[in-house]
Amino acid sequence: MEVQPGELLKSINFPEDLRKLKDDQLKQVCDELRQFIIDIVSVNGGHFGASLGVVELTVALHYAFNTPYDQLVWDVGHQAYGHKILTGRRNVFHTNRIYQGISGFPKRSESEYDTFGVGHSSTSISAALGMAVASRLKGEADRQHVAIIGDGAMTAGLAFEGLNHGGVEDSNLLVVLNDNCMSIDPNVGALKEYLTDITTSHTYNKVKDEVWNILGKISKFGPNAQAIAQKFENALKSAVLKHSNMFESLRFRYFGPIDGHDVNHLVKVMRDLRDIPGPKILHCITVKGKGFELAEKDQTKWHAPGLFDKITGEIFKPVITKPSPPKYQDVFGNTLVELAVKNKKIVGVTPAMPSGCSMNIMMKAIPERAFDVGIAEQHAVTFSAGMATQGMIPFCNIYSSFMQRAFDQVVHDVALQNLHVVFCLDRGGLAGADGPTHHGVFDFAYFRCIPNMVVASPMNEEELRNMMFTASRHNGPFSIRYPRGNGVMVEWKTPLKEMKVGTGRLLREGEEVAILSVGHPGNFAEDACKQLAKEGFFPAHYDMRFVKPLDEEMLHEVFSKYKKVITVEDHAIQGGFGSAVSEFMTDHNYSIAMTRLGVPDRFIEHGEQKELYDECHFDAAAIMNAVRQLVGSEYLVHH
Amino acid sequence: MEVQPGELLKSINFPEDLRKLKDDQLKQVCDELRQFIIDIVSVNGGHFGASLGVVELTVALHYAFNTPYDQLVWDVGHQAYGHKILTGRRNVFHTNRIYQGISGFPKRSESEYDTFGVGHSSTSISAALGMAVASRLKGEADRQHVAIIGDGAMTAGLAFEGLNHGGVEDSNLLVVLNDNCMSIDPNVGALKEYLTDITTSHTYNKVKDEVWNILGKISKFGPNAQAIAQKFENALKSAVLKHSNMFESLRFRYFGPIDGHDVNHLVKVMRDLRDIPGPKILHCITVKGKGFELAEKDQTKWHAPGLFDKITGEIFKPVITKPSPPKYQDVFGNTLVELAVKNKKIVGVTPAMPSGCSMNIMMKAIPERAFDVGIAEQHAVTFSAGMATQGMIPFCNIYSSFMQRAFDQVVHDVALQNLHVVFCLDRGGLAGADGPTHHGVFDFAYFRCIPNMVVASPMNEEELRNMMFTASRHNGPFSIRYPRGNGVMVEWKTPLKEMKVGTGRLLREGEEVAILSVGHPGNFAEDACKQLAKEGFFPAHYDMRFVKPLDEEMLHEVFSKYKKVITVEDHAIQGGFGSAVSEFMTDHNYSIAMTRLGVPDRFIEHGEQKELYDECHFDAAAIMNAVRQLVGSEYLVHH
Repeated sequence: MEVQPGELLKSINFPEDLRKLKDDQLKQVCDELRQFIIDIVSVNGGHFGASLGVVELTVALHYAFNTPYDQLVWDVGHQAYGHKILTGRRNVFHTNRIYQGISGFPKRSESEYDTFGVGHSSTSISAALGMAVASRLKGEADRQHVAIIGDGAMTAGLAFEGLNHGGVEDSNLLVVLNDNCMSIDPNVGALKEYLTDITTSHTYNKVKDEVWNILGKISKFGPNAQAIAQKFENALKSAVLKHSNMFESLRFRYFGPIDGHDVNHLVKVMRDLRDIPGPKILHCITVKGKGFELAEKDQTKWHAPGLFDKITGEIFKPVITKPSPPKYQDVFGNTLVELAVKNKKIVGVTPAMPSGCSMNIMMKAIPERAFDVGIAEQHAVTFSAGMATQGMIPFCNIYSSFMQRAFDQVVHDVALQNLHVVFCLDRGGLAGADGPTHHGVFDFAYFRCIPNMVVASPMNEEELRNMMFTASRHNGPFSIRYPRGNGVMVEWKTPLKEMKVGTGRLLREGEEVAILSVGHPGNFAEDACKQLAKEGFFPAHYDMRFVKPLDEEMLHEVFSKYKKVITVEDHAIQGGFGSAVSEFMTDHNYSIAMTRLGVPDRFIEHGEQKELYDECHFDAAAIMNAVRQLVGSEYLVHH
Repeated sequence: MEVQPGELLKSINFPEDLRKLKDDQLKQVCDELRQFIIDIVSVNGGHFGASLGVVELTVALHYAFNTPYDQLVWDVGHQAYGHKILTGRRNVFHTNRIYQGISGFPKRSESEYDTFGVGHSSTSISAALGMAVASRLKGEADRQHVAIIGDGAMTAGLAFEGLNHGGVEDSNLLVVLNDNCMSIDPNVGALKEYLTDITTSHTYNKVKDEVWNILGKISKFGPNAQAIAQKFENALKSAVLKHSNMFESLRFRYFGPIDGHDVNHLVKVMRDLRDIPGPKILHCITVKGKGFELAEKDQTKWHAPGLFDKITGEIFKPVITKPSPPKYQDVFGNTLVELAVKNKKIVGVTPAMPSGCSMNIMMKAIPERAFDVGIAEQHAVTFSAGMATQGMIPFCNIYSSFMQRAFDQVVHDVALQNLHVVFCLDRGGLAGADGPTHHGVFDFAYFRCIPNMVVASPMNEEELRNMMFTASRHNGPFSIRYPRGNGVMVEWKTPLKEMKVGTGRLLREGEEVAILSVGHPGNFAEDACKQLAKEGFFPAHYDMRFVKPLDEEMLHEVFSKYKKVITVEDHAIQGGFGSAVSEFMTDHNYSIAMTRLGVPDRFIEHGEQKELYDECHFDAAAIMNAVRQLVGSEYLVHH
C-alpha cells in the first residue's frame, strides 16, 4: 500500500500512544485519521460515511477512557474503522473486508479492543450493560463501559429493552448517542422527530449550558468527583428534570446535545462523565460523511460508495462493455411496483432498508403504500400482519439475516393466523464482504419448520418475478429468498406467469445422477452440467424452486429414475433444502446415494461471494467434483 | 354447567346488546361479569387475576366503541375472558382452555371480535397500527383501532417499535395502557418506575384535570369535534407538553392516569378520545385480581391459580397419596442454586418468568446474581452475552416459544462469538392448555442449524441436572430444553455427573428395531417397550440426549445393528431430531426403514398435554403401533 499515515497517526499503534499526546494535538490526529480513512476506502471500498462521522468521537473515547480496560461497544460497527486504525490494525487496514483480511466490523477474535462482535444493530446497550454488571459483580468499581449507538439503531426494540433494564441497574454504563439523523437511509419515526426537537430547542440548549457549567465545577474537584456526585445529581435534577426527557424517564442521566465534531470538548465531557456513576447518556450531534463534502451532501449514496477518486469524488463504476443482468434487488423493486399498480391491496414494508432492497422504487412511485418503519424488523412483520387482517397484501422485505430478529412474529403473528403476508428475504445465502453477521444461511431451516409457510427461492430474474406474482395470489404466508447481487438474465422483464405452489422445473434430463438445486445456485449446476457434458457425464438437473412444500411428485420421479442425487443450496447443510429432501427420502423409504452441497456447519467469514462459494464447495467446480465422485468410475466403466 | 349469569349479563349475547343498556346500568354489568368469571374459573381453572382487573375496561370499550367495526386488539390476551363472554361466547365459556373447547386467548378463527390472535406479549400496538393504516388506505375515516396493553408488555422492544412508528402515522390508533404494575410477576425496569412516578405525581394529576376539562368542552361539540381538534391540540400543548412525558416524546397524545375501575368515567373518556384523530394513549390504573380480595393481595399466585373455592378462596391442590416426581421447573431452579453456590461465575437471567421457570428460587437464595430483566427476551440474551464476555456463566431461561423472539441474538451475539451462555428452554414441546402460541415445537430446528450450538434435551430429572452441570463446564453456547410439568423421578436429587457432550445412552438392547428418542418422550418409549415385550416385540431403545452434536458413534452402531429405526420427539417433524437422524443416514449412505414420530406439520390446538401427545401420535400407544407396523408381520413370522 502506498497510503501513508500522517505524522501523528504514524506514531499511534495503540491507544496508549494516543494518550501520550497533548490535548491540543488531538485535532491534528482527527484530521490525519480522517484522511487515512479516505485514502484507504477510496481505493479499497467499504463503508465510508459512518466512520468519517465519528472520527472525533473515536479519538475522544480512546483518549479519555483507559481502553481496553475500559470497554467500548460499537453498535452495528461499520463506523468503527477509526477505532480499528487506532487499535493495532492500521497496517492491515488495507485488507479490510477482503477475503482472509480484517473484518469490516468489530470482532472479538481480532482484537481485545473489540469487546463485542457486531454487524446487526442495536445490541450495544444490552451487551455493555452485561459487561458493566459483570464488572460490578467482580468488584471492578473503576471500570467504565461505553455503548456508542446511532439514532437509527436506537429505534430498534432491543435498544429500548436495554435502556429499560439499564436504568435500574447501578452500573458504570455510558451510552453515547451518535445522532446523525441517518441509518443507511434517512431515519424515520417518532424518536427521530423527538431528537430533532431536542437538538433545535432553545430550552434544551439553555439547560445544556447550565449542565456544562456544573460539570466544569465538578471536574475541578478531580479525584473527589465521585464524592460530590450526589450534590451534582441534585443540581441536575433542578436544572434538567424540570424539562424531563425520554431518556431521563428511563432513569438515564441525559447530557447534551453537544457537537460531536469538537474533539477537545468531547474529551472534557467524557472525562467528567467518567466520574459520574450509574447509567448516563451523552447525546452527540454528528454529520455522516463529515469532512468529505460530497459524502455530507448525499449520505445514502456515500454510506458505502465503492471505489472513488478521493480528489474529484468521482465514484468509479465498472466499465460495462455489454448489457449485463440486473441486481435481484432491482428486479424485486420494479416488479413490486408493477404488481402494486395493478393490485391496490399490495403494500410494501421495509425496516430501514429502502435503498438496500430497492423498496425505494415503490416509495417513489406509490409513496402512500410503501412504508419504511425504521430499524424494527419485529414491528415490520407484526405491522404487516395487522394490515393483512384487513385484506391488504404486504410485501415485507427483510434481509435474511435480519429476519432472524422477527422469527417469532413470523410464527406467532403471521403463520399461526395463516395471514397473507409475502416475505421477501433479500441477502439470502452468503452475503459477501459483510461477513458472518450478514450471511443469510439459516432461513430455510427456521422457515420450513413453520406450518402454513411457503418457502421459495428463484433461480433467476424471471423466476423471482413469477414467484412474486404467484405470492400475491396465494392466500397465506409466502417467503421468497434471493441473494445479494446480480442475476443472470439481461432481458429480465418477462411477462408475469403464475406458477403452481410447490412445483419444480426439470431443466435437463440426464443419466445416473440428478442434481436438485434451489435458488440461484441452480446456475452453478447448469454451468457444471455444461462442462461435465464435455467429460461424458450427463447429470439431470431439477430446479426445485420450493423448499416447502416440496414437489413430491417430482421427487418420486427423481428417486425412481436416478441412482444418485446431489442437492445444492446456498444455505446451511443442517436443516436446509438437502435436509428436507433427505426427510422425503427417509419417509418414502427410498435408498439411494445422496450428496448434500451447501454451507458447512461453521460460521463463514467474509470475502467475495464467489470466494465463499468456492470455500463452501457448492460452486460449479464443486458440483462437478461431486458428480465425478458419486458416479465417476462406475459410470465411466458402464459406458 | 350450573353457573348462571346475572340478570343483565344474561341479556347480553353481543356488544350490541350491551350498548342498548343505559350508562347507569354498566356498574351492575361489571359486577355480574366479574362474578361470572369468578364462578367459572373457580371450577374450570384458567387465568384469573388479569381478567378481573380489566372488567370495567372491557365493558367500557365495548360500550363506547362500535365493535366489531371498531377493532379491539388485546395484548397477550389472557385478560380477554370478559371480552369473550360479552362477544358471543358466554354459553361456551366453560369450555375455556379445554381440548376442543374455546381458546384461552383471542383467536381470529373463533370470533370476528377477536381481531388478532395473541398469546405472546407486546404485539398489539404494531397489529392495531397495521389495521389503522389499512383503514386509512381504504378510506374508513370513522373506524377506530384500540390496542389494550399492560405495563409489563410495554417493556418489550416490539411495543416500543410500534410506538415509534405509530407516532408518525396519521391514523386512528388508541393505545390503552393497562397499568397494574404486574406481569405474571411484579414488573421491573425503568419504565415501571416511571409509570409509578407519573401516577403519584401531583403535577400530572393537576394536568389530568385540566385535560378533562377541555375534553368536557369538546364532547359538547358532538359531531363537530373533529373540526376543533386543532384548537384542542393547541390547548393540550400548553397544558401538557410543558410537562412532556415519554409517550408524548414519541408523538402520542397522552391522557391520564385515570382510574381503570370507574366504568362510567372510562366510557366518558373513551367517547371523547374516539373523536380525537391521530395516535393517543390512555393510561389507566387497574388492580390485577380486582374484586377478589385474595387475588388482589397475592397477584402472582392468583395469575392462574387452578381450581379454588370461590367463597373461602382455598386453592384446591391435588390430593397426594404417594410421593410424586417434581416439576422439571423446580429441578431447574434448585439445581441452578446448587451450581451457583459452588461456582461464583454462574448468574441467572429470566425475562419476566421468575415464578414460571422457578428462577425465583435463585432470586431468593442469591439475589445479586439473578436477574429478571422484564418482558425482553432479546435483551435477556444479549445481556447474557455481554456478561459471558467477562467470564460470567449466564443461565438464561426462556420458554421455548418465547425464545423465538431472541433467535437473532442467539445467533449473532452468542453463537457467532462462541460465548459460554447456557440456554434453558422451558416449555419445550407441546405446552398444554395455553395452546399453539405457547407450544415450543420449533426449537430443535432453529437451534440445530446454528454453528457452535449444543442442543440437548433430558429424559428425566437426573439427566436435566447432569446436563446443567455439564453445560456449566462447556465453554460455548449450550441449550437444554425440557417440557412444562412433572418429570418421572421421585428421588430427583441425584449426585451431579458430567456427561460427554454429544453422547447418548443405550437404555435397552433389542431386536430388529431401535427406538431413538430425545428428551422426555423417552419415557413414552420405555412404557411402549415394556408393553411390547408382552406381545413378543423387543425393540432396542436409545436415549440420544443430544440433537446436536449427534452421537455419531452410537448412530453407526444403531444403523449397523438394526434393520428399522423409529425416532421420537416432542417437536415438529420438519427439521427436528428425526430430521437430523435422517441427514445422518443420508450422509452415511445407510438405507433402512425409518419412521419419524413427532408433531405433524400443522399448528396444534390447546388441550392437556397427554391429549395432544395422543393427537400427534407420539405417546406410548403410538410408539407401540409404529413398532408393530414397522416390524410386525415379518418379525412375528420370523420368530
